[in-house]
Amino acid sequence: MSQTDGLEGVVAASTRLSRVDGEAGTLILAGYAVENLAPHATFEEVARLFVHADLRADRRAIPAATVALLREAVGRRALPMDALLMATPTLRVDQPVDVIAAFPTIVGTYWRLLNGHAPVPVREDLSHAAHYLHQLTGEDPTPGHVRALETYLNTVCDHGLNASTFTARVIASTQSDVIAAVTGALAALKGPLHGGAPGPALDMVFEIGTPDRAEAVIRAKLDAGERLMGFGHRVYRVRDPRADVLAAAAERLYSNGADRRVYDLARSVERTALRLLHAHKPERRLDTNVEFYTALLLHGLGLPTALFTPTFAVGRVVGWCAHYLEQRRDGRLIRPQSEYIGPVGLQYVA
Amino acid sequence: MSQTDGLEGVVAASTRLSRVDGEAGTLILAGYAVENLAPHATFEEVARLFVHADLRADRRAIPAATVALLREAVGRRALPMDALLMATPTLRVDQPVDVIAAFPTIVGTYWRLLNGHAPVPVREDLSHAAHYLHQLTGEDPTPGHVRALETYLNTVCDHGLNASTFTARVIASTQSDVIAAVTGALAALKGPLHGGAPGPALDMVFEIGTPDRAEAVIRAKLDAGERLMGFGHRVYRVRDPRADVLAAAAERLYSNGADRRVYDLARSVERTALRLLHAHKPERRLDTNVEFYTALLLHGLGLPTALFTPTFAVGRVVGWCAHYLEQRRDGRLIRPQSEYIGPVGLQYVA
Repeated sequence: MSQTDGLEGVVAASTRLSRVDGEAGTLILAGYAVENLAPHATFEEVARLFVHADLRADRRAIPAATVALLREAVGRRALPMDALLMATPTLRVDQPVDVIAAFPTIVGTYWRLLNGHAPVPVREDLSHAAHYLHQLTGEDPTPGHVRALETYLNTVCDHGLNASTFTARVIASTQSDVIAAVTGALAALKGPLHGGAPGPALDMVFEIGTPDRAEAVIRAKLDAGERLMGFGHRVYRVRDPRADVLAAAAERLYSNGADRRVYDLARSVERTALRLLHAHKPERRLDTNVEFYTALLLHGLGLPTALFTPTFAVGRVVGWCAHYLEQRRDGRLIRPQSEYIGPVGLQYVA
Repeated sequence: MSQTDGLEGVVAASTRLSRVDGEAGTLILAGYAVENLAPHATFEEVARLFVHADLRADRRAIPAATVALLREAVGRRALPMDALLMATPTLRVDQPVDVIAAFPTIVGTYWRLLNGHAPVPVREDLSHAAHYLHQLTGEDPTPGHVRALETYLNTVCDHGLNASTFTARVIASTQSDVIAAVTGALAALKGPLHGGAPGPALDMVFEIGTPDRAEAVIRAKLDAGERLMGFGHRVYRVRDPRADVLAAAAERLYSNGADRRVYDLARSVERTALRLLHAHKPERRLDTNVEFYTALLLHGLGLPTALFTPTFAVGRVVGWCAHYLEQRRDGRLIRPQSEYIGPVGLQYVA
């Protein structure tokens, strides 16, 4: 037996889906470098590469009972991720690709209900990414917005055995069904320690407000020992290759009319943060991480922070489904050992 | 990096909750040998040992929206495990001990609805195990039935890092909440490869029907290369200590009025199966496993096979909650590696 800590360095599965090389700073998605695939392919093409089936627009609708449950969740102001976790087991779906098709409808329906709007009917004439934006806003998105979202969803569609994907594989290893595997993955993604899901990465940018305040605010945070959200990643020792893809997509998006002031502010804050981080810890290589550019990109698409993690799920569900299929086909039951460190020999007395 | 297969032999957590020693054939639950604790302690006492909090009878009720969802699930004849998986994320609970308190109500409510009966109101004057039987039947159970069920629930409350418990820990390791962890655990427990949950263990007994047919039926199965359900376990190389506890509990139950004919038939089938298995594979030590006696015990309590896995969950949720708490307190993010065996260097062409 080998003792491990968080299973770091333990190989728990062989996969043909993605290769994360944290030393080299590369990410391969189904054989393609992320920077080659994500900015150019449609989400439909990426989904097909991963689950070997076609996303069908006629599978976007969700059951009436699911909508009723979402309505009820509004009454208690459930977070969108909790609503997604509640809704997923109620889907009447057994094909992985159909789970992917339904996710934008769940998130969009709940978001509109939560904000007092009626859900909009499913549109079958839009692409998957366009349909997600339409479900949220009720408006036809611009091609630039669709391309930006598609690049984001493609970029985050899979990333090795992160905690949610690993959860999906453990569940799949019992030969449970795809709804069960995706539900478990969502349960893990909800956790604040799950990497990849952007949350507060832009909060510091908004807190700073204007470029001239960046140095003072960041210096104060570093002096107080705070971690700067948006910088560094457990896996990548060099630059996360997804960051470049998303930085370029964000730049294109903002140059096409999104709030340019926020973009310039964010990049200014970034430069200041990197300079001060380097001065503060010269021995560590700390780089802007994927969450920072994700937040910038999604903000440019008009998405509020509350939708960042659900939107991540709309992309990552591709990986969950693909790992489910791979584990079902190739894997065996995942059942590690534990080391007992408690008492022995206690005597029960009634 | 070490390559593993199903993480067998890899230690993924330290725990004070249970120790499974498959070589010695022993199981320690919170410091007590299973045979010392399970037949004597109340379920409430066992839950307190594991989650360090008191099960409260006033936390047994489930939200009206959960009942509505269960009613809807009846319309599509959802399996009880699917209904439990759907209902759990809709609970409005944040204390692990309160999840445990609610499980019998979910299972009982759904079972009654599924069979065309009105759910019975929660009773706060009954013990947890008695309340579960009352939720199912609407009748006050006998003390003998309650003791038999309690012994079963105690026996299966925890068992190292089985796939569902491990799922709960992976989810907890992201600092997600207890509802998320238990939901993921249920998703794993649904899988047919998950050990411990009895399903078809008694099917062979019923198929055989009378003791004189046992030899011919079992011999035919062995000749056809079939696995005999109810015998053998991946972890235990010697006798599973839970089997003795449950065999004794089953014997007491059946001697107190349950269907004695089934008991005698089952024990007769067991003797024949063990004799033929030994002749068939003399080099392997194959023993009656816990599923066999579980099925016998639960059948004696009047529970149909469809309720066996949900009843297992009513007991095992104690372990899930305890591991959730332990992982949240002591653990770090569980994030293993994968080995990439797919192509590299593909070039995307739009």
